[in-house]
Amino acid sequence: MSRQAPRWWQRDDLQYTQGELTLAGHALRPLALAAGGPAYFYNAERVRTKLRGLRDALASTGLRNRVFYAIKANRFTPLISFIRSTGLAGIDACSPQELQFALSCGFEESDISYTATSVSNADLDILARHPGALINCDSLSTIRRLGERCPGRDIGLRINPGMGLGYGDNALLQYSGAQTTKFGIYREHLDEALALATEHGLKVRRIHFHVGIGYLNRQLPHWEKILETCGEFIDAVPDVQSVNIGGGLGLPHVEGDEPLDLNAWAAVIKRQFGPRKLEVCVEPGDYIVKDSGVLVLQTNTVEHKRDTDFIGIDGGFNLAVEPAFYGLPCEPAVCTPRSGATRKVTIAGNINEALDIWARDVMLPPVEEGDYIAFLNAGGYASAMASNHCMRGQFYERLLYPKAP
Amino acid sequence: MSRQAPRWWQRDDLQYTQGELTLAGHALRPLALAAGGPAYFYNAERVRTKLRGLRDALASTGLRNRVFYAIKANRFTPLISFIRSTGLAGIDACSPQELQFALSCGFEESDISYTATSVSNADLDILARHPGALINCDSLSTIRRLGERCPGRDIGLRINPGMGLGYGDNALLQYSGAQTTKFGIYREHLDEALALATEHGLKVRRIHFHVGIGYLNRQLPHWEKILETCGEFIDAVPDVQSVNIGGGLGLPHVEGDEPLDLNAWAAVIKRQFGPRKLEVCVEPGDYIVKDSGVLVLQTNTVEHKRDTDFIGIDGGFNLAVEPAFYGLPCEPAVCTPRSGATRKVTIAGNINEALDIWARDVMLPPVEEGDYIAFLNAGGYASAMASNHCMRGQFYERLLYPKAP
Repeated sequence: MSRQAPRWWQRDDLQYTQGELTLAGHALRPLALAAGGPAYFYNAERVRTKLRGLRDALASTGLRNRVFYAIKANRFTPLISFIRSTGLAGIDACSPQELQFALSCGFEESDISYTATSVSNADLDILARHPGALINCDSLSTIRRLGERCPGRDIGLRINPGMGLGYGDNALLQYSGAQTTKFGIYREHLDEALALATEHGLKVRRIHFHVGIGYLNRQLPHWEKILETCGEFIDAVPDVQSVNIGGGLGLPHVEGDEPLDLNAWAAVIKRQFGPRKLEVCVEPGDYIVKDSGVLVLQTNTVEHKRDTDFIGIDGGFNLAVEPAFYGLPCEPAVCTPRSGATRKVTIAGNINEALDIWARDVMLPPVEEGDYIAFLNAGGYASAMASNHCMRGQFYERLLYPKAP
Repeated sequence: MSRQAPRWWQRDDLQYTQGELTLAGHALRPLALAAGGPAYFYNAERVRTKLRGLRDALASTGLRNRVFYAIKANRFTPLISFIRSTGLAGIDACSPQELQFALSCGFEESDISYTATSVSNADLDILARHPGALINCDSLSTIRRLGERCPGRDIGLRINPGMGLGYGDNALLQYSGAQTTKFGIYREHLDEALALATEHGLKVRRIHFHVGIGYLNRQLPHWEKILETCGEFIDAVPDVQSVNIGGGLGLPHVEGDEPLDLNAWAAVIKRQFGPRKLEVCVEPGDYIVKDSGVLVLQTNTVEHKRDTDFIGIDGGFNLAVEPAFYGLPCEPAVCTPRSGATRKVTIAGNINEALDIWARDVMLPPVEEGDYIAFLNAGGYASAMASNHCMRGQFYERLLYPKAP
C-alpha cells in the first residue's frame, strides 16, 4: 500500500486513509468485497451537508425558500427515506410513479413539486387524486386538461426563456436555448396560457423554469441574464407567489473544475428576485447526491493490447450511462492503491459495445486482476438509469452512515 | 381515414390496410389500445423469414454454416422461444445470465456461442459448468484463466483485425479500427495467445471477429478487405475448423437506405473462406429482429411552440435509446392516419431531458391528442436496453403470429 498524494476530489468524507479509499470513514474495498458484485455506496451525511449548504445559501437571500430534491437523479429507497428524515427538502417528481413513491417514503403532497412534459390523461387522472401537490404545467394542452379535471386548483407554469446553459457548454444538457425545445411556455404563448388557466379556474401561483444542468461559476453571469429574462415573465403574471428556478447546479467532474460558489449563486437570486419578495424554490438532483456516491467495480483483466493498457472491469455503461452517452466522466480511483509508478490506462467495461469505456488514457497506480476501482460522482443518474442490457443489470446499493471511530 | 401512399418501409407484413397500420395482419391501434401503455409488437414470421434468408444465403456458399442469434438485441421470452422452435439458429450469448436464459428456452449448450469481454472469474466459474458451449476468448487473461479451469476444452479466439465499419460510418458503432479497442486479440499478440492456449491444454477450433454494426451494400468492399485480413489470422492457427464472422449485418433505417444484398454478402464469404473449407458462423442480432418490431406510443399533447409543432407522446428515450444516444432513427408511422395535408412536426417523449426527442422535423399527416404512433425498427436494442428512468419503465410486449383472414 502506498501513501497517496492529495487528489482534487479529496474531502474529509472521501479520502485515502492508511492506504484505503474511504467514504464516510468506511474503507470501500471490504464493502465491495462483501457486496460480491457491482455496488454503489452513498454517504448519507454528505447529502445532508449539501442540502444544509443550499438551505443556508437560500436563507442568505432573506427570501422564503424551499428545496425540492429531484428524485429522478437517484430513487434508492434508503436514500429517499434519509432525505425525508432530514426535513431539509421536499421532492421534485416528474411522473405519477415518482410522486406516489415519494409519499410512500413519508413525504406529504404539500412537499411535492410536480413538473412533467408530454403529460397524458392517465397521468392527470392520478394527479387529480393528489390535490396537495403543486403541478407545474409546461404546455397549454396540460393547462386545459388539468383545468377540466381540477378547476380551482393552484398551479405553476413552466416557462421557457429561450436561453440555456450546461456543464462545459454541453449541448446535450441544455433544456432551452436558441433551438426551440419541448419544454415550457414561451413568452409569445404566455398570455394565452394565462387566459386558458383563468378560463378553467386555475390560479397560477408559481413560475417554474429549468434551463440546463451542471452550471458552475463561469456560467453564473449568463445564468443571471436568464433569471432577468424570467423576471419579465413573472411580472406578466398577477398573483404569482413563488418562483422555482429549477435545478442544474453543477459540481466538479474533472480536475480544475471549481465548485459552485453558493454565495455568488444566492446573490444572483437576491438581486433578481429579492425586490419581488417571492418565495424561491430550487429543485436540484445531481447537486445533492452525485458526489455522495461511488460505484465500485472489480478488475477482471489487465492486458496490454497494441499500444494501450486496458483494465477490464466487472460492470458496463448500463450501470452508469453518463460517461458513454453524455460525455460526463466518472473519475476512477483505485480502492487500495499498490506501490509503484502511475501509468496511463484505459478502463473498459464488460459490455460488448465499443462505447463501453469508463475512462480513456487516465493515470493510475499499478492495478492487478482482482483490484477494486471506485468511480466517483456516481450518486446521480447512474443506478436510476441502469438497464439490464446483456442481463448485466444486477447491482447492490448501500447507504453509509459515519463509521464509529 | 385516408389512403396512404406506399412508404419506403412498406412490406407485405407491415403496411396500411384500409387506413390502419398493420403488422402481420394485425391492426396496431387496437392492440396498443388494449395494451394500455407503451407496447412493443413483434412479427414472429418476419423473424423466421430473416433467419431463413440468411441460412439460404449461407447455403449458397457451399460451406457448412451456423447462425447464432445475438440474444442481447432482444431477450423477450416468447421471441426467444419462437426462435428456438424454428430450429434455424443457436444463440450468441455475452453473459452467463444470457447463456442460462437461452438454455431455459430449450437451447442446448452446443447451440451456444459465448463471446464476452472483461470476463470475471465468477463468470468463468459458471462457464466451466457448461462445457458444451463454445467460448470465444477475447484476451490472453481469459485464455489463461479459462485454461486453469477447463484444460482440454475447445475454444474460439476473438481476434481484432484493426479495421472496422458501421452504419453510415457511425464511429459509435465500430468495434475495431484505427484506435485500439478493448476487443479481441491483435495480430501482434496472436502467437502468444496460441502458446498460452497450448500451455493450458485448450484447443483453438474457431476464429471469431466482430467489426461493427449496421453495414450495408456500400460497405461490402471494405468488409471483404476485413475478411481478407482475418484470413491471415486463420492461416496462422493450426486445427481451426470454423470462422465466426460476427454480426453487424445492417438494415435500412431511413428512406434511401438499400437493403443488404445477401447474395453479394454470401459471395464475399465464399471468395474469402470457400477455399479454406471452413464452417462459417454468423451472429446477427438486429438483422434478425429489428425490423420485426415496432413500439407503439400514444399522443398526449399536440402543441405549437414558437416555430415548432410538437407531438408529445407517452414514452421516452428510456424505452428505446438508439435515437437519442446512437443517432439511429426509429421511423415514425401514424397508426390510423387522418385525412389532410402532411406537416412538419417534432415528436418528443415524456422524459424531462432535452435529448428525449423521437424525431425532429418529420412530415406526418394530421395528428390529434389520443392518436397512436408506431416507431419502426424497434425490435432490437430497444426493450432490451430499457431502463426505469423517472419510473417510466413500464411497458408491454407481444409476439404476433399471422392473423387469420
